[in-house]
Amino acid sequence: MSDVARRAGVALGTVSNVLNRPSIVAPATRARVLAAIDELGFVRNNLARTLANGRADTLGFVIVDIGNSLFVDIARGAQAASAEAGMKLLLANSDVNFESQNDFLDWFDEARVGGVLLAPLDGPLEAAQRVRNHGRPVVTVNWPGNPGHSCGVTVDEEHGGYLAATHLLERGRTRLIFAGGPLSLHAVAERLSGARRAVAEWGSGTSLEVAETARLTIRTGREFGKEIAARKLSERPDGIVSAADALAAGCVQALVAERIRVPEDIAIIGYDNNHFAADSIIPISTVGQPGHEMGRIAAGLLLEEIAGGAHEHRTVTLAPELFERASTAGDARG
Amino acid sequence: MSDVARRAGVALGTVSNVLNRPSIVAPATRARVLAAIDELGFVRNNLARTLANGRADTLGFVIVDIGNSLFVDIARGAQAASAEAGMKLLLANSDVNFESQNDFLDWFDEARVGGVLLAPLDGPLEAAQRVRNHGRPVVTVNWPGNPGHSCGVTVDEEHGGYLAATHLLERGRTRLIFAGGPLSLHAVAERLSGARRAVAEWGSGTSLEVAETARLTIRTGREFGKEIAARKLSERPDGIVSAADALAAGCVQALVAERIRVPEDIAIIGYDNNHFAADSIIPISTVGQPGHEMGRIAAGLLLEEIAGGAHEHRTVTLAPELFERASTAGDARG
Repeated sequence: MSDVARRAGVALGTVSNVLNRPSIVAPATRARVLAAIDELGFVRNNLARTLANGRADTLGFVIVDIGNSLFVDIARGAQAASAEAGMKLLLANSDVNFESQNDFLDWFDEARVGGVLLAPLDGPLEAAQRVRNHGRPVVTVNWPGNPGHSCGVTVDEEHGGYLAATHLLERGRTRLIFAGGPLSLHAVAERLSGARRAVAEWGSGTSLEVAETARLTIRTGREFGKEIAARKLSERPDGIVSAADALAAGCVQALVAERIRVPEDIAIIGYDNNHFAADSIIPISTVGQPGHEMGRIAAGLLLEEIAGGAHEHRTVTLAPELFERASTAGDARG
Repeated sequence: MSDVARRAGVALGTVSNVLNRPSIVAPATRARVLAAIDELGFVRNNLARTLANGRADTLGFVIVDIGNSLFVDIARGAQAASAEAGMKLLLANSDVNFESQNDFLDWFDEARVGGVLLAPLDGPLEAAQRVRNHGRPVVTVNWPGNPGHSCGVTVDEEHGGYLAATHLLERGRTRLIFAGGPLSLHAVAERLSGARRAVAEWGSGTSLEVAETARLTIRTGREFGKEIAARKLSERPDGIVSAADALAAGCVQALVAERIRVPEDIAIIGYDNNHFAADSIIPISTVGQPGHEMGRIAAGLLLEEIAGGAHEHRTVTLAPELFERASTAGDARG
């Protein structure tokens, strides 16, 4: 505090007044003192540490969409790993909103938590870099790190799309359609790319149509299913690779309502292993990201970086897993 | 700060040293200064406000179980109302753990957020009262307030149980069974009590058996369904009132696997309106709490209390709603 007084060229009591009774200090003097406090970051640090006892034992997690159970799984995995290390984890739902994501990153930065996990929107990450520039580690989840600069945990989405399409091809399906979108979403584009690779490898007699959808919701899935049902028999696919479980669930509802049999007439596989995919009475096959493990590993990387010592910034890429269920059962040729 | 110095009987510079370089202050003096800071809560308040710029514009929400979509709905409703008031909402998942619930309450208290929402475990709430004693409002969600002392938002669980059982009785079901537990859980006991009232009102020719379960999970539901299927036909119920959707979903899976038809042989209704109840291909009827509205109203009560002025501590009790779906379709007599 005496450093602040020296820097601002005021008496110690004036610094105290600025902190306790700012209204009695002349505006220009107040501005000078606050500027000095800002410049001497360590003063704020020391005060904050004294006041906010234990806040360095807290991690923040900014989550793109808490309504998606994948992120709930990730949060629970991160919480388990944090708790084992004696750390608390606070969650913030950015609700697929950029401004909100940035605000929460700044909040955790100002609250001087030990570090931050970020499951980001698809887009630029300047705010995360700003937090890192303040010496506070940020690890991305469901988003790659920047090797040498930051850590991230991601899933091989291309491989996931490959797994899903190959699963349908192995069951004798030949006329596949990939449904999902918008394709500007990184993960959707990667899944499509993997599905394309699978069909290309399988070769002659198989095809992949691409149906870009505006969203990945149940409602969009119902509309897509109605479109498929309205087609002539010869133009219908016999296998659907859906970029999301919600989309697949809506599609199945529409197909069944139009008396198209799943999987006999059209097999369908979703993506994300959302809880309802397994809990359906006719369960939907899906490709799942290991959410709990993603959260655990991301928290582990963050804790390692916070602990200091030898730490190599890296991206951990996990393999997605196929979950076979009734919606793709049986062989179309059998 | 000079108040602290006076109270502790030390020079102003000593207070500054305790905050900035505690190691150079004699332990006894340090203790005296910290005790004075504690007693004069407002000093810490002022400092915290200066340092934690904007933290009073933040609300905390301690959530019993983020894996239950009801609480995700509540959180999203609370976040919508907070955002409209220009407030941020931070979430903490106590993960059905008392110690964790108390730790997070203390955390938000120390972080000097504007106020706290609490969806608590079934049990004592001393930690919430401690936060209130520090002048920080705490509003309970899915838990009644203490009229005159604190606000809460709750759902009429007894009425929900009544709605569920009446729905089955109206469809000609006469041999009902209530499945759920443990009955020490307040909400489960209330739902049972409502189901009892419905059967009592309906009168002769109807009965209600109670099957207390150890948990409310899908797995427990599967075990319960197997037990029902193993019974002699004459001892099977024709209607099941399940205290939770997860329990109902597991039960349906087991019944269908044993070739018992739902709803023809046994109709079943769940509780909670969890997402998967609606997204199932044979959707499960359920009684739903209006989660989003609960969150909005709870945040509204908290904001009103924070704003000061005339505020009457009260419990807002919302009505649950019946969602009719395929699992209770048709009339047993028709």
